[in-house]
Amino acid sequence: MMKEQKRYFLTEDQLPRQWYNIQAEMVNKPLPLLDPKTRQPLTADDLSVLFAKECAKQELDTEHAWIDIPEEVQRRYRYYRSTPLVRAYALEQALGTPAHIYFKNESVNPLGSHKLNSAIPQCYYCKQEGVTNVTTETGAGQWGVALSYAAKTFGLECAVYQVKISMQQKPYRSSIMRTFGATVTGSPSMSTRAGKDIITREPNHPGSLGTAISEAVELATTTPDCKYTLGSVMNHVSLHQTIIGLEAEKQMAMAGESPDTIIACFGGGSNFGGLAFPFMRHQLRGDKKIDFIAAEPASCPKLTKGKFQYDFGDAAGYTPLLPMYTLGHDFKPVNIHAGGLRYHGAGTIVSQLLKDGYMRGVDIPQLESFDAGLLFARTEGIIPAPESCHAIAATIREAKKCKETGEEKVILFCLSGHGLIDMTAYDSFLNGDLINYVPNA
Amino acid sequence: MMKEQKRYFLTEDQLPRQWYNIQAEMVNKPLPLLDPKTRQPLTADDLSVLFAKECAKQELDTEHAWIDIPEEVQRRYRYYRSTPLVRAYALEQALGTPAHIYFKNESVNPLGSHKLNSAIPQCYYCKQEGVTNVTTETGAGQWGVALSYAAKTFGLECAVYQVKISMQQKPYRSSIMRTFGATVTGSPSMSTRAGKDIITREPNHPGSLGTAISEAVELATTTPDCKYTLGSVMNHVSLHQTIIGLEAEKQMAMAGESPDTIIACFGGGSNFGGLAFPFMRHQLRGDKKIDFIAAEPASCPKLTKGKFQYDFGDAAGYTPLLPMYTLGHDFKPVNIHAGGLRYHGAGTIVSQLLKDGYMRGVDIPQLESFDAGLLFARTEGIIPAPESCHAIAATIREAKKCKETGEEKVILFCLSGHGLIDMTAYDSFLNGDLINYVPNA
Repeated sequence: MMKEQKRYFLTEDQLPRQWYNIQAEMVNKPLPLLDPKTRQPLTADDLSVLFAKECAKQELDTEHAWIDIPEEVQRRYRYYRSTPLVRAYALEQALGTPAHIYFKNESVNPLGSHKLNSAIPQCYYCKQEGVTNVTTETGAGQWGVALSYAAKTFGLECAVYQVKISMQQKPYRSSIMRTFGATVTGSPSMSTRAGKDIITREPNHPGSLGTAISEAVELATTTPDCKYTLGSVMNHVSLHQTIIGLEAEKQMAMAGESPDTIIACFGGGSNFGGLAFPFMRHQLRGDKKIDFIAAEPASCPKLTKGKFQYDFGDAAGYTPLLPMYTLGHDFKPVNIHAGGLRYHGAGTIVSQLLKDGYMRGVDIPQLESFDAGLLFARTEGIIPAPESCHAIAATIREAKKCKETGEEKVILFCLSGHGLIDMTAYDSFLNGDLINYVPNA
Repeated sequence: MMKEQKRYFLTEDQLPRQWYNIQAEMVNKPLPLLDPKTRQPLTADDLSVLFAKECAKQELDTEHAWIDIPEEVQRRYRYYRSTPLVRAYALEQALGTPAHIYFKNESVNPLGSHKLNSAIPQCYYCKQEGVTNVTTETGAGQWGVALSYAAKTFGLECAVYQVKISMQQKPYRSSIMRTFGATVTGSPSMSTRAGKDIITREPNHPGSLGTAISEAVELATTTPDCKYTLGSVMNHVSLHQTIIGLEAEKQMAMAGESPDTIIACFGGGSNFGGLAFPFMRHQLRGDKKIDFIAAEPASCPKLTKGKFQYDFGDAAGYTPLLPMYTLGHDFKPVNIHAGGLRYHGAGTIVSQLLKDGYMRGVDIPQLESFDAGLLFARTEGIIPAPESCHAIAATIREAKKCKETGEEKVILFCLSGHGLIDMTAYDSFLNGDLINYVPNA
């Protein structure tokens, strides 16, 4: 019997030393970010009020396709990277599909998701620039825990606004942030003007990424030496996350295969862009055609049902105007367990790529996502995050199509995080208490 | 700057194909297991009433130093092994120690601990022998979740008795077992005669591994086609776990180092034996002297304060008599959060090795264990299981000694599992609600 190889790793010498900046190679560049008052394009200087200077620069860089990863960031990446590329033989077998299913396993990272890949450089740049405090929002808490740890290791103070409903659904994530010394506040809170306004309008607001962003942005802009960081949506975040796809590309080559389909769940776009962009560069150059699929929750379907327009990134309207597919910045997502996908808009790069036909969105009902997650757990032995369950559900859809057609497609998806902190969600699902939501009216 | 390598992996071709059976090379073999009624040594046939035949055979095998890992078990090991050997640079730096600290990271295994290493072969042998049901006890739940998953993948029904207090402290672990389709019952329960007797004597008994073992053993011996499995204490479990040490030995060679000190936490001995025994074989042959340290909780100190004598493995007295260091089978451990270490006795191999001076025990107060765990989390980015915190605490003690003496000792410890399901314990610790316990009178 030929031995089937299950996992592929890179040696430390093979780790990427540059991130891939897809903006430089896009045919149509993303539209500029606009100042909401003047409606004039924002410069890196404008953005650096909010972000670390280097992040602001990366955000608008449409010239350099490759950006050096600082030595110190590379050193910290080596602590946990590469992550394994895994062939999901057991899942394939359970589905009876001829498709070859691979996943890039970011769930074994410290803190359990891909978020650390951007938390490290963001904290690094802040530290380099003399910043002493960082703040952010977090939904499910994956970004919050990653930032809390990264901040701790760089000696930065860290304040996190966590979406109130997620805090209640996943109290352990707040505990983890506190373990790393962060201050955690449920959003909307009474600690900011934005929070107070929201609570006054709607006393039982469950919070959303939009409300939490407003509060973190307000804290950053009213506190000296404090910068705002974030875990998704923005271009520089996707840039840092391209480490995922760059590794995966080398690992797929080790496996002697090349993906026909690439799938990731979609909240703001960080794990999707991270995996997809490095592969998409060949497409931009007219090479191999890959089907790029972003899996979003049916209850928050900005890619499949949103409009491409300028909108705010937050609920209160503090951020620049972003050109993106959006459900409206006042869209209030329902309380699905995939807290990391409860966001009204998509990043500007992804929005442009979607508009230009380089990728597509699919929307996944909540019950289908947990069905998929349960099958994955019972076959591959890893309990996936509710967010990642959406990618698995989309993967299963494609694998089932292959079963019908007999095609041996190679499908690669991103397992963005584990679901060990989300067992209440699985409990509810197993007890039959979960429902499918449609978007709020 | 020379690049420091952080992690070492084996390729699939380098994975061990045999387990190491230390019994074959021990100078003084473990004393025999005795039938409590006749006080006669038990044979493999006797044991196979309870265990899979092959496990019963391995349990008493004092002849073969190397035992082939079945092909199918090797195939499943390849799904997640090797686990990384990691150099804890950040922890070293925080301690200011000249010691080189390495850890074998079993926390990234599916289900989050080393337990799967034995769950797979135990379920494999049961399946081979036509068994349809498996049962077991679990404390913290690490063993229970591993068995639930392994049983699911082999198509076996699985019933788990979980220590009642652990079930309350860590409800997520029960959820994970249910996710894999297992039936989970809190012990002591009213579902067995043993459980009823215990509850009658003491209505609020918090449960212990001893009570849960009694119930699982009773279920196995009164149910056709049902075998008992367990996650520690027995020789065949340590045998399966030697995959840890055999990998670590190759990985340490890749790092160009050789351990002076080897440390693991100690409940029944499975992760300790798994890491230590392969290294100890050189010692048995008179080669390099290594300091082997088993870290137990100060509140359950069988190695440092127990007596070497024949005792039952369970509370009700259903098991064979085992020759071991024990606090007495009616010892009721206090409710420390390291549920996996709340067991009154040590395995028979370890007991003999301790008696013969090949290793030593240290006992760690609860607060010291969490102090150590917190430092580890904040430096290495991994939240360790409360059990593993004991190994880390012992490691820190040794590393601090090196700081005093200036010795560049090489310390290797086993990170047996992550603590993501144990955040209530960290919460209590951070809130100042935990105390140090001494053993019950």
